[in-house]
Amino acid sequence: MNHGIIFAFIGGDLRQIPVIRLLSEEGHEIKTFCLEQAEFPNHPITPSKTLEEALNDADVVVLPLPYSLDGKTVHAKLSSQFLPVQDVICAMKPNQLLLAGRGSEYLSALCELHHIRLVDYTKREELLVLNAVPTVEGALAIAMEKTPYTIHQSQCLVLGYGRIGKLLSGSLQGLGAKVRVAARKHSDLAWMKAYGISGVPMENLADAVTDCNIIFNTVPHLLLDFPILAKIPKSCLIIDLASGTGGVDFETARELGRTAIHALSLPGKVAPETAGVIIKDTIVNILEELGV
Amino acid sequence: MNHGIIFAFIGGDLRQIPVIRLLSEEGHEIKTFCLEQAEFPNHPITPSKTLEEALNDADVVVLPLPYSLDGKTVHAKLSSQFLPVQDVICAMKPNQLLLAGRGSEYLSALCELHHIRLVDYTKREELLVLNAVPTVEGALAIAMEKTPYTIHQSQCLVLGYGRIGKLLSGSLQGLGAKVRVAARKHSDLAWMKAYGISGVPMENLADAVTDCNIIFNTVPHLLLDFPILAKIPKSCLIIDLASGTGGVDFETARELGRTAIHALSLPGKVAPETAGVIIKDTIVNILEELGV
Amino acid sequence: MNHGIIFAFIGGDLRQIPVIRLLSEEGHEIKTFCLEQAEFPNHPITPSKTLEEALNDADVVVLPLPYSLDGKTVHAKLSSQFLPVQDVICAMKPNQLLLAGRGSEYLSALCELHHIRLVDYTKREELLVLNAVPTVEGALAIAMEKTPYTIHQSQCLVLGYGRIGKLLSGSLQGLGAKVRVAARKHSDLAWMKAYGISGVPMENLADAVTDCNIIFNTVPHLLLDFPILAKIPKSCLIIDLASGTGGVDFETARELGRTAIHALSLPGKVAPETAGVIIKDTIVNILEELGV
Amino acid sequence: MNHGIIFAFIGGDLRQIPVIRLLSEEGHEIKTFCLEQAEFPNHPITPSKTLEEALNDADVVVLPLPYSLDGKTVHAKLSSQFLPVQDVICAMKPNQLLLAGRGSEYLSALCELHHIRLVDYTKREELLVLNAVPTVEGALAIAMEKTPYTIHQSQCLVLGYGRIGKLLSGSLQGLGAKVRVAARKHSDLAWMKAYGISGVPMENLADAVTDCNIIFNTVPHLLLDFPILAKIPKSCLIIDLASGTGGVDFETARELGRTAIHALSLPGKVAPETAGVIIKDTIVNILEELGV
Repeated sequence: MNHGIIFAFIGGDLRQIPVIRLLSEEGHEIKTFCLEQAEFPNHPITPSKTLEEALNDADVVVLPLPYSLDGKTVHAKLSSQFLPVQDVICAMKPNQLLLAGRGSEYLSALCELHHIRLVDYTKREELLVLNAVPTVEGALAIAMEKTPYTIHQSQCLVLGYGRIGKLLSGSLQGLGAKVRVAARKHSDLAWMKAYGISGVPMENLADAVTDCNIIFNTVPHLLLDFPILAKIPKSCLIIDLASGTGGVDFETARELGRTAIHALSLPGKVAPETAGVIIKDTIVNILEELGV
Repeated sequence: MNHGIIFAFIGGDLRQIPVIRLLSEEGHEIKTFCLEQAEFPNHPITPSKTLEEALNDADVVVLPLPYSLDGKTVHAKLSSQFLPVQDVICAMKPNQLLLAGRGSEYLSALCELHHIRLVDYTKREELLVLNAVPTVEGALAIAMEKTPYTIHQSQCLVLGYGRIGKLLSGSLQGLGAKVRVAARKHSDLAWMKAYGISGVPMENLADAVTDCNIIFNTVPHLLLDFPILAKIPKSCLIIDLASGTGGVDFETARELGRTAIHALSLPGKVAPETAGVIIKDTIVNILEELGV
Repeated sequence: MNHGIIFAFIGGDLRQIPVIRLLSEEGHEIKTFCLEQAEFPNHPITPSKTLEEALNDADVVVLPLPYSLDGKTVHAKLSSQFLPVQDVICAMKPNQLLLAGRGSEYLSALCELHHIRLVDYTKREELLVLNAVPTVEGALAIAMEKTPYTIHQSQCLVLGYGRIGKLLSGSLQGLGAKVRVAARKHSDLAWMKAYGISGVPMENLADAVTDCNIIFNTVPHLLLDFPILAKIPKSCLIIDLASGTGGVDFETARELGRTAIHALSLPGKVAPETAGVIIKDTIVNILEELGV
Repeated sequence: MNHGIIFAFIGGDLRQIPVIRLLSEEGHEIKTFCLEQAEFPNHPITPSKTLEEALNDADVVVLPLPYSLDGKTVHAKLSSQFLPVQDVICAMKPNQLLLAGRGSEYLSALCELHHIRLVDYTKREELLVLNAVPTVEGALAIAMEKTPYTIHQSQCLVLGYGRIGKLLSGSLQGLGAKVRVAARKHSDLAWMKAYGISGVPMENLADAVTDCNIIFNTVPHLLLDFPILAKIPKSCLIIDLASGTGGVDFETARELGRTAIHALSLPGKVAPETAGVIIKDTIVNILEELGV
């Protein structure tokens, strides 16, 4: 990546602060808009007064993660303004590169219409992998706080062996928990065996839940429905880490007296600094690959 | 250990509940006093109305951990009564065994005077070792909650390589932190090397603190004084796990703008259930060794 | 999988013995041919006298791993006979299932011609993953035996982060080595970071090798050529685990006085029993998925 | 430790070579005797022709580990001479310091008689701890080599939880074995629980051995006698790491058809370089503490 790139950061939350600070320290010029509550002591970063001023000679425009919470205005936790996404795209020039988090079809269509090159940095595997780390720590912190026992020696069941399942099961093992992971694929069960973790074929889930202390779900479709919930001990804590509507029938869980917590967006909540460093590293990788 | 022992539990906090529940499930008879707010659903445990009724035909009398908070009355978080320790000892019979947590010279003298056999279960190595586990998890939870970054990849420094230092450094390593441990003894530094942990001779402490993200102290005498505190980065979190007055000059830390937390009695706070199981297991070990 | 399947095992090495023994113990009928030196004490397994007798009413015919060493005759370490692969296929009936290890275009064509359903069990992900475990242990044993120092505290470099690279780097870390892994992909480097392992971008390989004690290669194309070999210390041990011609220019290594070992087919050599169990489990998975 | 100390190294095996090389590189002067087969390319070390010449102005005289194999002559694997220990002591001057490995009452008496200050460096805790590391790797290499299965997923039983037991059980766990450790003390069993290792009270040993794949003994008195050996499966490998006569009745084991290996002095055999570095580090610690 070249030094001396000009970035325009439009909107964001606490995570955007370390992204901006670190890029500034690497010698790049940073312009900000809709970030007026962010402070950058000892960094030569001055907020732009208008969107146009911010975008004017920027090489790269960066929207936050996610780029929008409502699909229409830019996600801007550190600002009191409402800025339509459309305004940003319309004000950009065709040679500028737009980086955005958790893009949508709407954003893609908008960019195509205005001939803006768009890269969704949340589709990058390295960001997804590294973001799993603060998610896992957030989940561990919830488990520590919300149970009257230690994770150590607890009977833990993890549903799913994707990025979060892999790291979570390893961390639980490192903390001395008794860990099992439920998954569908033979190859996933083979990896668990190789890593010394007890695997449970997903079709045996109903049997596996009966003696659990803590269940962590990472699968984004309904796994813990009435028949399964009814078999989970009342003292068990269920932590659902899956995005969207999650993998737990929360309504039924409540009626059955089971405790289930839907823990979403943990990286930004429990470790905004780390989450920011991850975004920054990913942006650097993208720009290097594009030869910017 | 025989079945059918009669226990009298006098006072205590949440930890005493699993102790009582588990001993009851193993077939022993339990009488309680000064525990009227504790509930034991489905367990045949009825609170005694008087101290004498509780003690009457008990084989073993159990005081909590610690047996007293003020040195005079029995520690009794789950009761509205004030019960002098002296009253308990005076009401006991010489053939009864007294188990108490964190005994004192006063308690020993009192027991000697009344020919009561006293065992301080908090002097048992197995309790001290296993209690280090919830202490470590409590410390990790604080570190996760009070910093904007993950433990993973953080530069952590642990002061002391006793029970807590050993387990804490292992858990931090398991979570992916960069761990160093400062200790005095060559043999401790050798153990660290054997376990793949970076050791810091205590005389190099001043140099080691300069790039820390989190410092955990486990040594119960003043190590983090003005000259050291001044070298610790302002963004570093200091967690002091040492009992008594700890190992940090908290006053000076505040003046210098360093964040230091004195985290005491973590097992009872973060994992009363686990802490109770540990007490119960230790009591069983003691009674087995005494042939009760 | 049904009980009472009839298997015909044709050829093989030591690994085939536990496969046969375990399937027999699960209630299946086993016929063998070209395995006359294998012994199965206490198992009702009688060698067939002719190929036809072995194949006659078999549901499943199993060729070893690899099915052939020369491409023409069946791999049969425990036999003094030479059996053309073609003879086996010709003698099979269309309704029989053929399982074979490390198939070839020739074998596929032959099976297609004779309407034999062929499954190459070495293409199964679970076998490849689990086979990496004995490969890793074999590599560790070589490293322990061929160096005058311990793996603990050694500077180890692993090339490649596939199945073997992942498990090997974890095991080396578990033994207290200083581990770095060189890989090309950002996502692989992200996984390493998540697992607390130092990653080296492959383009920095030349710098990374200069202080190594042990280098493990897992990448099946030439990485350690003259310019790299020249930078490797003479005392460093190079263990090449990549199949085929490996990743080391062995000729040049010899001329430069570097010690390089090409360690092939470790599972069958160092842990035939474990390797057999893996083959057996994979066969069971295949038959279950096929509804046999 | 001061620079420019004059060392006289008398006798030794391969381990003494790195000790000498490293001390020479730190700027000390080294004289050798009874080490004529040792080579030190690029190091200014010249063998002395006589014992007197070697001892003459030495500050520190170093005998090897062990200082003698027969109790009378100096242990000197890299020499063809026979040098009585007594000759060395008699030729020393009262102000010289003698460091020796695995001292004896005879050596102590001899030194006292001649007013020689003797330090047995094998009594240092840091040497004993760090020497356990190559012992463990040697034991793992034997287990890998002598069994047809992997350590991974093997049922391993370690007898004793001292230095070797602690490190060995941790390494086995790191390699994915199923590990249990048998020990007597409640506190040892508590440490195992804290580290997530299954503990077996020593009185249950007879039950614990029945399903083992590999048994490692570290306790230096007879544990595996006829009644226990008879319960061990014939396929189990027994590796005895205890010094002296070990903890296995080898005669009975042979008669019962059990495979037991007495593996002694592993550090010098499997990792002389590492073992030498450990001796050297310990010598430096001793001299620093003595203010030499």
